[in-house]
Amino acid sequence: MSSQAPQVLSTEDLNTADAKWVSLKKINWQDQSGRARVWEAAERRTRGSSGIDAVAILALIRSKTRAFPISTVIIEQYRPPVGKIVVELPAGLIDDGETPEEAAIRELREETGYKAEGALESSAVLATDPGLTTANMKLVILDVPLDGEMESPDQNLEHGEAIVRRTVEVKNLCALLKEYEEKKDHIIDARLLHLAAGFDLAERLRTGVMAS
Amino acid sequence: MSSQAPQVLSTEDLNTADAKWVSLKKINWQDQSGRARVWEAAERRTRGSSGIDAVAILALIRSKTRAFPISTVIIEQYRPPVGKIVVELPAGLIDDGETPEEAAIRELREETGYKAEGALESSAVLATDPGLTTANMKLVILDVPLDGEMESPDQNLEHGEAIVRRTVEVKNLCALLKEYEEKKDHIIDARLLHLAAGFDLAERLRTGVMAS
Repeated sequence: MSSQAPQVLSTEDLNTADAKWVSLKKINWQDQSGRARVWEAAERRTRGSSGIDAVAILALIRSKTRAFPISTVIIEQYRPPVGKIVVELPAGLIDDGETPEEAAIRELREETGYKAEGALESSAVLATDPGLTTANMKLVILDVPLDGEMESPDQNLEHGEAIVRRTVEVKNLCALLKEYEEKKDHIIDARLLHLAAGFDLAERLRTGVMAS
Repeated sequence: MSSQAPQVLSTEDLNTADAKWVSLKKINWQDQSGRARVWEAAERRTRGSSGIDAVAILALIRSKTRAFPISTVIIEQYRPPVGKIVVELPAGLIDDGETPEEAAIRELREETGYKAEGALESSAVLATDPGLTTANMKLVILDVPLDGEMESPDQNLEHGEAIVRRTVEVKNLCALLKEYEEKKDHIIDARLLHLAAGFDLAERLRTGVMAS
């Protein structure tokens, strides 16, 4: 199969009535002083019975024999809305009837090949970008124990999906993201960058770079 | 002035032609195999000359006399798209002609009253929610030195804005967010939660809870 760089060919205005996946909403609301006001927002049409649109996955990949340091996996995927390859946590929409944790385990398996044994922790429901959209999500931390050495299992991608997997030691995540900042055809997802920034902040406080 | 809980009164479909702040786009793109495909996305109409929609602000509030531990500030603000009070980092849209760092300093001052001396660090341009929108942003870390004790400066809110400010020691941020998870009328912004999750991850690795 030939492979080439994905690209945006053209963009046009779309009416809500003609859209399949997204709709535009006018929200009539009342502020704290009782005044009637209007807000405009985008909404996914795909939300199922869980009431939650999506999950992002922080996979903690560990060796039962301590053959490698605790690691995680991030992905690279072309995203037409930003016209670039986005560096992001594995993530996906929650199917109807699925729990967030089931969706996380399924998406991790599909996008990266890693099989999680279970969820170590799930966040509360989060607002993804609440000034602009109604979208919500959970961050699920998954436990991925491996028998010994690091493995590179086959991905289970759907037809037409092109996702590159990158495993990285957790403590090297910030440094890896710095490398992507130099690449013009890549852009980092905000949530992944915030996770790395929080990790970096803790390290800096600990080592006294910002001690008070 | 009387104050009451803000609320959504009604929601209706909105056509792109009638929307002022947001538009819906149909993106015609070509994937890695050369196949023509379609993606639907929402887009802000407000992007200015910087080419970046928004900034989020991690303020590092420190005492020159070490009178208090290094702290940060988060805000609570009702967001109609999610119909709840969102707990989030101070943030805002970048005005036309402004740099991201100037927008960050201005927004921090308006929303929290704190005056930053400058930016310690700015992230690369980030994709906010690249499966759904074209929105992009930067995370800016601001330096807020205080002479001695913690201060509570007046906010500079615009008419109609109602923002509650919460200062918190950086090391207590995760615990504070846990408290919000119990509150039914609040929801945490995904980026803030990811930042806290990264901080927590570093702490857990250090203390051996997840050592490998």
